[in-house]
Amino acid sequence: MQQDLYFFGGGKAEGRGDMKDVLGGKGAGLAEMTNAGIPVPPGFTIATGVCLEFQKEGGQTPKRVTESQVTYLARLEELMGKKLGQADDPLLVSVRSGAKFSMPGMMDTILNLGLNDESVHGLAKKTENPRFAWDCYRRFIQMFANVVLNLDKDIFEEVLEELKKARGVESDTDLTEEDLTGLVDTYKQIVNDHAGQSFPQDPSVQLAMARDAVFSSWNNPRAIYYRKQNKIPDDLGTAVNVQVMVYGNMGDDCATGVGFTRNPATGEKEFYGEYLVNAQGEDVVAGTRTPQPIAGLEQAMPEVYRELREITTRLENHYRDVQDFEFTIEQNKLYLLQTRSGKRTGTAAVRIAVEMVHEGLIDKAEAVLRVPAEDLNQLLHPRVDPAKRPTALATGLPASPGAASGHAVFLADDAFKQAEAGKPVILIRAETNPDDIHGMDAAEGIITSRGGMTSHAAVVARGMGKPCVAGCGSMRVDAKAKQCSVGDTTVSEGDWVTIDGSTGELMVGRADLIEPEIGGEFGVFMKWTDEFRKMGVRANADLPRDAEKAQSFGAEGIGLCRTEHMFFGEDRIRIVRDMILSAGEFKNLEIELNAAKSDLKSRVGAEKVRVEERLEKIKEAIKEPSEKYLGSLSKLLPLQREDFKGVLKSMAGFPVTIRTLDPPMHEFLPSAQELSVEIAVAEERGESSPELDDKKALLSRVEHLHEQNPMLGHRGCRLGVTFPEITAMQAQAIIEAACELKQEGHDVFPEIMIPLVGTHKELENQRHVVDQVAKRTMEQRGVEVDYLVGTMIEIPRAAITADEVAQSAQFFSFGTNDLTQMTLGFSRDDVAHFLPEYIKKGILKEDPFISIDQIGVGDLMRVAVKRGRSVNEKLKIGICGEHGGDPESVFFCHRLGLQYVSCSPFRVPIARLAAAQAALMARKPAEVSAMA
Amino acid sequence: MQQDLYFFGGGKAEGRGDMKDVLGGKGAGLAEMTNAGIPVPPGFTIATGVCLEFQKEGGQTPKRVTESQVTYLARLEELMGKKLGQADDPLLVSVRSGAKFSMPGMMDTILNLGLNDESVHGLAKKTENPRFAWDCYRRFIQMFANVVLNLDKDIFEEVLEELKKARGVESDTDLTEEDLTGLVDTYKQIVNDHAGQSFPQDPSVQLAMARDAVFSSWNNPRAIYYRKQNKIPDDLGTAVNVQVMVYGNMGDDCATGVGFTRNPATGEKEFYGEYLVNAQGEDVVAGTRTPQPIAGLEQAMPEVYRELREITTRLENHYRDVQDFEFTIEQNKLYLLQTRSGKRTGTAAVRIAVEMVHEGLIDKAEAVLRVPAEDLNQLLHPRVDPAKRPTALATGLPASPGAASGHAVFLADDAFKQAEAGKPVILIRAETNPDDIHGMDAAEGIITSRGGMTSHAAVVARGMGKPCVAGCGSMRVDAKAKQCSVGDTTVSEGDWVTIDGSTGELMVGRADLIEPEIGGEFGVFMKWTDEFRKMGVRANADLPRDAEKAQSFGAEGIGLCRTEHMFFGEDRIRIVRDMILSAGEFKNLEIELNAAKSDLKSRVGAEKVRVEERLEKIKEAIKEPSEKYLGSLSKLLPLQREDFKGVLKSMAGFPVTIRTLDPPMHEFLPSAQELSVEIAVAEERGESSPELDDKKALLSRVEHLHEQNPMLGHRGCRLGVTFPEITAMQAQAIIEAACELKQEGHDVFPEIMIPLVGTHKELENQRHVVDQVAKRTMEQRGVEVDYLVGTMIEIPRAAITADEVAQSAQFFSFGTNDLTQMTLGFSRDDVAHFLPEYIKKGILKEDPFISIDQIGVGDLMRVAVKRGRSVNEKLKIGICGEHGGDPESVFFCHRLGLQYVSCSPFRVPIARLAAAQAALMARKPAEVSAMA
Repeated sequence: MQQDLYFFGGGKAEGRGDMKDVLGGKGAGLAEMTNAGIPVPPGFTIATGVCLEFQKEGGQTPKRVTESQVTYLARLEELMGKKLGQADDPLLVSVRSGAKFSMPGMMDTILNLGLNDESVHGLAKKTENPRFAWDCYRRFIQMFANVVLNLDKDIFEEVLEELKKARGVESDTDLTEEDLTGLVDTYKQIVNDHAGQSFPQDPSVQLAMARDAVFSSWNNPRAIYYRKQNKIPDDLGTAVNVQVMVYGNMGDDCATGVGFTRNPATGEKEFYGEYLVNAQGEDVVAGTRTPQPIAGLEQAMPEVYRELREITTRLENHYRDVQDFEFTIEQNKLYLLQTRSGKRTGTAAVRIAVEMVHEGLIDKAEAVLRVPAEDLNQLLHPRVDPAKRPTALATGLPASPGAASGHAVFLADDAFKQAEAGKPVILIRAETNPDDIHGMDAAEGIITSRGGMTSHAAVVARGMGKPCVAGCGSMRVDAKAKQCSVGDTTVSEGDWVTIDGSTGELMVGRADLIEPEIGGEFGVFMKWTDEFRKMGVRANADLPRDAEKAQSFGAEGIGLCRTEHMFFGEDRIRIVRDMILSAGEFKNLEIELNAAKSDLKSRVGAEKVRVEERLEKIKEAIKEPSEKYLGSLSKLLPLQREDFKGVLKSMAGFPVTIRTLDPPMHEFLPSAQELSVEIAVAEERGESSPELDDKKALLSRVEHLHEQNPMLGHRGCRLGVTFPEITAMQAQAIIEAACELKQEGHDVFPEIMIPLVGTHKELENQRHVVDQVAKRTMEQRGVEVDYLVGTMIEIPRAAITADEVAQSAQFFSFGTNDLTQMTLGFSRDDVAHFLPEYIKKGILKEDPFISIDQIGVGDLMRVAVKRGRSVNEKLKIGICGEHGGDPESVFFCHRLGLQYVSCSPFRVPIARLAAAQAALMARKPAEVSAMA
Repeated sequence: MQQDLYFFGGGKAEGRGDMKDVLGGKGAGLAEMTNAGIPVPPGFTIATGVCLEFQKEGGQTPKRVTESQVTYLARLEELMGKKLGQADDPLLVSVRSGAKFSMPGMMDTILNLGLNDESVHGLAKKTENPRFAWDCYRRFIQMFANVVLNLDKDIFEEVLEELKKARGVESDTDLTEEDLTGLVDTYKQIVNDHAGQSFPQDPSVQLAMARDAVFSSWNNPRAIYYRKQNKIPDDLGTAVNVQVMVYGNMGDDCATGVGFTRNPATGEKEFYGEYLVNAQGEDVVAGTRTPQPIAGLEQAMPEVYRELREITTRLENHYRDVQDFEFTIEQNKLYLLQTRSGKRTGTAAVRIAVEMVHEGLIDKAEAVLRVPAEDLNQLLHPRVDPAKRPTALATGLPASPGAASGHAVFLADDAFKQAEAGKPVILIRAETNPDDIHGMDAAEGIITSRGGMTSHAAVVARGMGKPCVAGCGSMRVDAKAKQCSVGDTTVSEGDWVTIDGSTGELMVGRADLIEPEIGGEFGVFMKWTDEFRKMGVRANADLPRDAEKAQSFGAEGIGLCRTEHMFFGEDRIRIVRDMILSAGEFKNLEIELNAAKSDLKSRVGAEKVRVEERLEKIKEAIKEPSEKYLGSLSKLLPLQREDFKGVLKSMAGFPVTIRTLDPPMHEFLPSAQELSVEIAVAEERGESSPELDDKKALLSRVEHLHEQNPMLGHRGCRLGVTFPEITAMQAQAIIEAACELKQEGHDVFPEIMIPLVGTHKELENQRHVVDQVAKRTMEQRGVEVDYLVGTMIEIPRAAITADEVAQSAQFFSFGTNDLTQMTLGFSRDDVAHFLPEYIKKGILKEDPFISIDQIGVGDLMRVAVKRGRSVNEKLKIGICGEHGGDPESVFFCHRLGLQYVSCSPFRVPIARLAAAQAALMARKPAEVSAMA
């Protein structure tokens, strides 16, 4: 026969910790703790099956249960030596729901059950605090009326508010015992008036009604909704837990407190916590009295202290994790009210995991699974001392983690100059562009009012490992006036400001920063992760110093080296601009030339002569810019060769994936708007000069090259296909660099990556250019270089046609930034206009630029892997979008079977840990749920 | 035993027309014609199998074939009464390849085989044209040397050029008989010197060598490449056709000509063609002599004429299609050299198809399959008289079909004014924007220097059915100076220009235009298409007049009514701007409000007070713009209601799909660049006024709303989700319009379409708004309206997650313009920078904005249909991208199982025909190949 009730108390429980089906999560936990000898307040659990019968019977608890309950209550009363609701020393209980799966706040709870017009006096006497007793009683009436009798809470709240107004007080706590006594009368009257019955004084009636109310709450609308959302079956039912209430405020032999078995901030193995004598749990939390460090309890109640230490140590050993516990001492008797795994900082998590392995408490695999990968972030960046955190003036996007303080500056040049002079500065801009690089490099941190998580500022700052807040929309920046404002608050140049790139906050003033401390445990821990992970971890790095930083963090190569960032140096941008301008012109003429040539075919006589003349003129015109253009390219070649030598050398022994030129041309050009204004003003002044004419010509070219949607425009391999000379120059620079390094004795493995491929023919075309140049260069240099040619998979069509693309690719690298942009139709630079609202309204669960949209983008990735490998079983596939550093995305990549992930240097440890966890989760299904 | 040789001639052939495997395509055709009693020059075919043996034997023709060949040649000589290469009246033959599948120009051909030092005299005598005979001989030597002996053609060409230079003549035809005789000697010497053998004088040796050369040419590199490209198997081999040469230039009893069995321009059933007495085929084509109308032949050679008419009629009946034939009369004997289906204009195609059905020659299904759908375009737009076509000055994209002439104007206002004054004008712009609508409407045609096939100008012009050339990059437009230039040619305001939107050409001057003539056959034909097609055809139309035009073309509803075009009217754009500007401001404040509210929670004491004060200020600030914003919306409501009444009424009885607001906000705003210039100039002048301040404020808002990639920005349902009031207003206007029309007795079926959905939650959100408003409105009006709510499928993610999206959608409509943009990562406004080169380089076969990219975009469509119908088997799915009017895309949509296509009004007949063809092709697989 099925058992309906399960007792726990007196060191023994009828249930067990693995009986969640029957006892619900809370009931099973109470049984487990009781059996482990932990002194939890005793009680009994009514099984989930009873709830189902209750529902089936249309809201009737079976008679046999009601009868058993009398026996169980008697047993509890006997154990406690008190009777429910008796007048002098009343037994009071809580009645709580507890389903198999946690449904926080969805169902009902009733506290202090057993209070009535008589027992309230007993509670007052025992606690020597009549005010407390009457407050408990009026709260109990309100809770009971609301939960059991379905009265509106507001009726009671209104009465309470009126009373406070009448007494001229602000807070509930300012009401006197007399006020509360009167309030109890009023509340009872309200119940009488609205519920059609009086408030039940019989504690056993209270208990029966409360139990049934909890059973009913299984089917309240919010519980049903919650189950639907969380895919919890409707036919589980909830258990009901009836548990003795204990009080820490019954005199000086009472106390209450909270604690941790290890320091949750540092991870140090120390008994850590606070307590208050003669107090309730609320008092510890509310801050009305200052709690004592738990060490004080050793003097005050040495016996109890020893018992607490012994018990909590047992708890930690039992659960094999740091415990965060609440306790109450009622008349020298210790009760543990709650215990759970303790939340901890990243630093603490690592230290605890490592020490627990050394103590033999857990194994390495479990240690690795214990530390949330994202939490390592805290170990890698400075942060604001939480104890002295200034108020946030405004909040933007947390674009690059870490905190920084400095003097506000509004121009890159100012940032550069002041930093040179030794002043720490924060660069504040509406948005940044390549011209600002030197200022960004000089600043401690960057904040912009526009742009998203992958705006220029964000990407560059993350690459530099520098704090950045982006898209801080409520901040208005006036660079001319060298100030910015949020509401009425104005920040002028030189003012101290602090930004927190981990939270997106802007603060006025200088904050105390805590520098990252990477202790010895961190190194040990990271080594363990490498024992488990299956995927390689590379870094996205453009410069040797970034590559070195990445390697120090354990990167095993570079997954993305963006060559365009190399073009932005002061000395180069001019050459690049020259190249683009003349190339564009040259290209345009070439199109005209071809048009004229084809026109010529269909012409005779005088017309033919006319077209021929035109053809000659075009040919003449082409000559000069063409040379200018090729000249620019040849000026870039030696510079690029040195760039690549630097990066390849700093990652010698590992593969380095170098992407050919990717961004739209106009990113290298001045702004049309600014040029127009300069020209209009000069004309208004009546100026006229060759420079002005040049400016006008420049404007005309810039406007010609202007694109409505540059992200979907003439960029990526489209540049390489239309200007093969650029790809050829870059390939030559890469192979020359590799040849020279090999001759110097370095092992180098360049992987040349073609961006923005949408059709296999683009890749074929570009690979042909690269292979031709490589062959010629290696022959000239007499050196063989192991190089690969592969492609980004970042356009949906490339994913869909991966079987075609794979025929020319030696590797795939998912560019999930662009793939997300195109699959979702989201411009990452512009999402700030609607994404925050989308997340607020629940349309998206999270920013898809941070964590891969597994259903949409992920489906294309799955298709690409399947189709790509259908052609080339061993195709090397990785990811170099910024998602490569996001733990959830790393798990997903592992499930897809990728060979590596690549992320910004500062996220390499996170990716290593996530990769290890992904491998372990695949290995140990049981531990997956432990992680969740 | 397998037969190696097949004779044809004397009214009988050993082979048959269905023996392409054995005889190759050409050989089978010759056999078929011979058996049908058509007098083709006789000959024999050496089977494809021999070619395979030849290859296997390493280039040896089997002995048994060589032996049979002697017999067959003898039979041919007997039939013709001449011997190969005999001195006085020589038999001459051609030797040609002919594989199962046509491989034009890939393999070798030799003409006039049998000529040698003796027979050349015979030919001279018979043709009474020694110059011709010697020219044939020297060409034969050159061809033989090149094809059979592998000598370089250039060696001979150089000698020829030198000779012409020496003689001081320009053309080959200016060389005399003596020149040619000398040239033959030189050519023979060249063969001696370079081939290591003398030119073979023995005709049977010539024949054997030529045959083997043709067999060898099956494996020449260009044939192999061609087969690879066209997926033709390598193991088929080619046949060799040896056929008697006939001459139309042997005297006045000889002639040559070409003809059609019906007029290919008009389709009229008349014997149509030209001929020349005593001439070669070349003479007819080259235009050196003026050919006579074929009717003249009736007088000149009545017998032969009658035979020709009889034979060609037989040919038409045999092939059941218009025949385009070539004939030669050699000494009163008629030979048909070639016959094939005749190319015809769209007009002719329709007339011929209809008349052939009436004649009982073909059935309706075949008639429908016979007319290429795209060719109907010619019936629907004016075109330039091809006889008097001006030279093209420049060529852009053929953005909207039809031709137009008018006076050049450069500003929309000028276009409007001059058109009002009765002058036809062509509007020339760098690009158009919504402010230009009135000018575009007034112009005969539009040409722009920027933008692609789906730029504003292109889309609007197609909607208006007006010719448009877009992206004419070589044209530079200077609107200020009211002129444009291409190279040195400048067009000023008032100059006559002509544009051809079907070819993309810009011409200087006024052209003669041929107006479309839609005869009675066209109507009959279109009715037949409706008998076969399975898919509905709707039109994309925003205005009642477009809807009416569409209906007159047979549209069965509107598949896309864009509401934003309704916003661009002079009176409305101001209201819309007001709305956007205040809405944006309001929205910004709301975000700040929420930030402040959430900030408040974590603050206490003085800080809390500060945040509270801020909160109050924001609340205060929100009030005013919010009212302004809602005020603008309520001003738009009645205007929109009237818009919708117009469109719904004009399509009464049919469904009308109305899309909620789609474009990015900034499309309604002035340009930041222009505003900056105005402000800078005003400031330079020292001006200061409230208007200037307003302008500055406007600039700041415009810049705030600026987006890097508006196509992927805050648009589509993202507007509706963030500003639900806009969707609500539009839904209300639609339902109110429908209610009023129903009360007036009209049947209306509005389908409300939510654009740019990427996640099912967006659709849920918007559908909820629409349904709420619809319910309320219908209750208020007391009318029930049958309305649907569905979504565009235009974001890759929507296609991928169609099973989720379909749960809230009552219909899907593929927005293949945007779907193409995002799947390929192509901004349609910017592709002009690289797409032409992509097509030139073969990276793409065609513009994916014209014909659906079936491999990439099509795969997503397939996924969407499958997943959408997995949830809702009967889900209505259509397409409203511009591909809906492209025949190939219509075929594809039929194969996907869509219920309807929707296209611009002027393409409705094309879509109807294509839909019928798609249904027929699915039904009759044999006829699919007939179409190809």
